[in-house]
Parts: sequence; structure tokens; C-alpha cells
Amino acid sequence: MTNALPVTLDDVRDAAAQIKGVAHRTPVLRSRTLDRLVGAEVHLKCENFQRIGAFKFRGAYNAASRLSPEQVAKGIAAYSSGNHAQAVALAAKELGATAVILMPEDTPQSKLDATAGYGAEVVTYDRYTGDRVAIGEALAADRGLALIPPYEHPHVIAGQGTAALELIEEAGDLDALVVPVGGGGLMAGSATVAKGLRDRIRVIGVEPEAGDDTKRSLEAGRRVSIPVPRTIADGQAADIPGELTFSVNQRLVDGIDLVTDDQIRDAMRFAFERLKIVIEPSGATGLAALLAGRVDRLPQRVGVIISGGNIGAGRFAELCGN
Amino acid sequence: MTNALPVTLDDVRDAAAQIKGVAHRTPVLRSRTLDRLVGAEVHLKCENFQRIGAFKFRGAYNAASRLSPEQVAKGIAAYSSGNHAQAVALAAKELGATAVILMPEDTPQSKLDATAGYGAEVVTYDRYTGDRVAIGEALAADRGLALIPPYEHPHVIAGQGTAALELIEEAGDLDALVVPVGGGGLMAGSATVAKGLRDRIRVIGVEPEAGDDTKRSLEAGRRVSIPVPRTIADGQAADIPGELTFSVNQRLVDGIDLVTDDQIRDAMRFAFERLKIVIEPSGATGLAALLAGRVDRLPQRVGVIISGGNIGAGRFAELCGN
Repeated sequence: MTNALPVTLDDVRDAAAQIKGVAHRTPVLRSRTLDRLVGAEVHLKCENFQRIGAFKFRGAYNAASRLSPEQVAKGIAAYSSGNHAQAVALAAKELGATAVILMPEDTPQSKLDATAGYGAEVVTYDRYTGDRVAIGEALAADRGLALIPPYEHPHVIAGQGTAALELIEEAGDLDALVVPVGGGGLMAGSATVAKGLRDRIRVIGVEPEAGDDTKRSLEAGRRVSIPVPRTIADGQAADIPGELTFSVNQRLVDGIDLVTDDQIRDAMRFAFERLKIVIEPSGATGLAALLAGRVDRLPQRVGVIISGGNIGAGRFAELCGN
Repeated sequence: MTNALPVTLDDVRDAAAQIKGVAHRTPVLRSRTLDRLVGAEVHLKCENFQRIGAFKFRGAYNAASRLSPEQVAKGIAAYSSGNHAQAVALAAKELGATAVILMPEDTPQSKLDATAGYGAEVVTYDRYTGDRVAIGEALAADRGLALIPPYEHPHVIAGQGTAALELIEEAGDLDALVVPVGGGGLMAGSATVAKGLRDRIRVIGVEPEAGDDTKRSLEAGRRVSIPVPRTIADGQAADIPGELTFSVNQRLVDGIDLVTDDQIRDAMRFAFERLKIVIEPSGATGLAALLAGRVDRLPQRVGVIISGGNIGAGRFAELCGN
């Protein structure tokens, strides 16, 4: 506990200044119905309204915009299960750089199209057999591109933390912050902000039941690998926590709650019918944990990060239509 | 053109003061994608985020809150194809009054449930054979209830106009205002505001193709009745314009554009996938007209009222799932 953390509250504040005017300051929604159902005052930070439809643009732009002009001229690369791909593609476009994005071949078509739509070159691989880190690094080295990882980078983590910073600026002191966990970048950035501003806030991560690598790792006290999870929460299908993100989360996160795919569907339907907003499965896990009563001893003022809203109407109909 | 209009800009300003702190001041959304697609600067007034999920709460509360304490003690009644029902139910609840609501028996279940959920007694009738005005008036007379009509009332029209007032306050001068037309209350209130603030603004109504009673009536110069329309836009299934609303719209509305059910579906899907918001069919007709290129010579700065978002996930899946 004596080592300095790799990302600090000041790094997140610095990221907030860096992305200002490029990323959206997304709304914080309240709902009387939700408060009544969960018995707390809930503040929803709506990153589904962020550019590219998810928080990922914050970290991608914070990292990409700090590259040297020489690196920008050579181009940028990324590997991603979806939203980080669009995020890096748009960040590159904003900076006038070319982007090459490595994506799993079973990525929802809407995300493949959106990434290509930002002018990026998309290269696909099989995520059940291929190692995206190795393939991505080889691709970047081959073409001289700067690789922006989805979470294993201090600038990315600091950028993701700006969502929690805005949430707390707007909502005021919170007793708990609930955050979806995939690779752990949003979690690490959020925890850095939350604990940096208020030591006694409870910081809770939420994973899909099938993708509980961070929960197992926290319990084991070391990074634990699980089989590639099959869950509707495709943005949280990580099989092992990041090394850098886990080093932060191990020190700052108070606990992880798990939600089932059915609970995620219920939360998406609730958001649709009552809040009138669209949330993708991974984006709904924090809300799902609250609605399903998965958070023990829920305190009074709770912030939840709704991390993204990239889902096609057809896929939504499949998941939530009945 | 010499007679005074039944509702003035001052009436709408007065309504805005009356509903302040009870109705939400809903957000005005922008979208780069939408602007690019339609070639204009579009400001979307999102009444899907209004209390009860639609603009109707504005007019209902403005009217109900002006009843005498004696009338409030006796109770309130309404007839409605859906959102006005919930609006009057909630307005009554806010005022501590009982409410009896007459609704078509083929109203979407989510709207029946929501109305009862606000504590109102729901009475149903067959809208293809029954006359809701006659049934509603008999019901109100029988039980000594104050009847709040869905649009044929100056307080209701003035209340609905507050959405356009807020939109123009936030967006600044607009060159055109596009508004869904059902019975014509939202249209009349919006036109009163728009023309009251800026004589040369174009005020455009939008109806579903199957429910073009206001368009035909404007062309005929008198109220024309059509067969009860069958359209997915259930909130716009009026068969004849209101007398009061038509007297306003005839003088202030520049034209009506029509959209097909398929164009409405496309707009709902666009709102879902790109804007991440939920719009019901009737609420999407203004957006549909823009996206389908139905508005001739579209000027630069356009306001659109997104009138509501009350649709179940199952019904959305049926309409937009493929």
C-alpha cells in the first residue's frame, strides 16, 4: 500500500481539461420511480449520450491527443470488442490521423459499421482463438502506428475517470458509486476520482455473472483468468483484469456485485419504458444491480455510471422484446 | 381575421408560470448526424422526458390546477386515447383529487396500466363505435366531476404551448417549427407561441397519412371528418380537428406534411440507435417528416417537438425490430 498509484485525481482533472469541448458533458438523470423502487436517491451518469455512444471516447481522446505530431502523422491503432474501436476511430478523425482498428469478428454489426463510418480501417479476428493483444501489437509495429489500448494505459484510465468527476461535480457528495467493470479502466478511473474526493465513499463494481474475472481476482488477491465469458454484456466479456487497472482496483474498490443476463435485460427494459433512454447490455449492469437488489446495505445517495448505449433496434428487440 | 384568438402568447406565459416546478423543463437535444442528414440545424424538444412521458401533462395540469377547491373536492374526469389519460390522472394526484378516466379499450396496455398506476379509476369503451365526448360528458355529469378535455379548452391549449415556449427560449429564434398534430392542442399552443414571438417563422404540422383530418380541413377551409384512422400513431388517430384548436390552427399554421407508418418506424429506429432515446409513434412524426424529406424548402434553424415516449419494449420490438 506504500507504492504510488499509477493514476491520481490530478491526472483525471488534467484529462477533464484535455477533453473539454471535444467530449460531451453528459446529463445526469434522476427518476422518482427508480428512487422509490430501490429506496435510495439515484443519480445516473448517462454516457450513452457521450460521443460514439459510450464513455470510451473520453479515454481514447485523452490518450490520442497527447501523441506527438509525428505519431499522429503515422497513424493510430486499437483493438477492441466494440466501443473503444469507435472511440479511437473518432479520436483519430478529430486529430486528422488515420486509424486501423482490430475487432472481434462476432462484434455486433452496428459497431463494425460505426467504426468504419468514422473513416477507420477495420481488421477482424476470432476472439475465441486469437490473442488480440499480440495481433494488435504486431499490426501496430508492422505499420508504425501508435497503439491505444482499451484500458491498460494511464491516459486512458484518467480519461475514463472524467465521467465520475462530472457526476460528483453535478450530484454533490455521494455515499456510493456503482460502475460496470470490463477490463477495469472505467472502474479504475472512477475509483480514483471517488476515493480521491471522499475517502469514505463506497466504490462498487458490477460484472455479469459469466464474466466475474475481477471479482475472482479481488478475492484471490491476484489476477485470475477465466474462460472467455459468454454473456449479452459484450463490452464486459473480459477474461482477465488488466494489470494496471487491477493494481488500482485492488486498492480502491470495495466490492464487486454480479448480475445475470436476465437482470441486465430487465434493467434495459426499465430504462427504455420508464427513463425513455437506450442502454446497451454492458451499460446497464450498474442499474441492473440496483434494481435486482444486488447491492447490500444500499446507502442514501448513489451514483451509477450508465456506460453506453450502442445497440441496434433489432438486437434490442431480440433481447427485450418479450 | 378580426376576431381575437381564443389563446394568446400571454396565456401561454401564464401557463408556464402555473406549471413551473410541477412539470419538467425538458431537454433540447442536438445531433450532428441528424443535422447532416437533413441539411439544417435541428433542435429537438424532448417531451418524451416530460412527466407521464408526454407533453400532455402540461395542459392537463394547467387546466386542473385552475379548478376551484370545490371542484377539486368533487373530482376530475377525462377521455383520452392514452397520454392525456395519464396526464389528468397525475394532475389530479398532484392536486389531491380523485380522477375517473375514459379510455378506448384498444389502448396499449402500458398506457392503461400507467393511468391506473397514478390512482385513477379507468373506464373503457370501443372507439370504433362509441362517441367518447358523449360518454365522457355523461360520466362527468353523473358523478359531478370536472371534465378536462384533451384539447378543446383554452387552458389545455395554453399549457401545451409551454413546450414551444421553452424550446424557443433555449434554442433562440427558429426559422421553422415542426409539430405533430392529433386533435390539434399541441399544434395550436405551439403556433400561438411561435407566431406570437416571430411573425415570419414557418409553423408546420405533421399528421400520419391515414389521419390527415387537419390537412384536409385546412384545404377545405372548414373542419372535415374522416373515417377513424388506423395508424401506428395512436395518439394522432383523430377523425376531425377540434373546433377550438382548428380556429387557431386555421389562422396560424402554414401547412401540414404527411408521413407514412414506415417513415414513422424509421424515425423511431433512428432516435433509438443514434440519439439513444425512446419515442412513441405519434411522438416521432415531426422527426419522421424531416428524415423523410417531407418538409419542402427546409430553412436553416428548425425546432421539432418530440411529443412523447410511451411505448412498451414489446410493442417497440414489433414495430422496429427488423
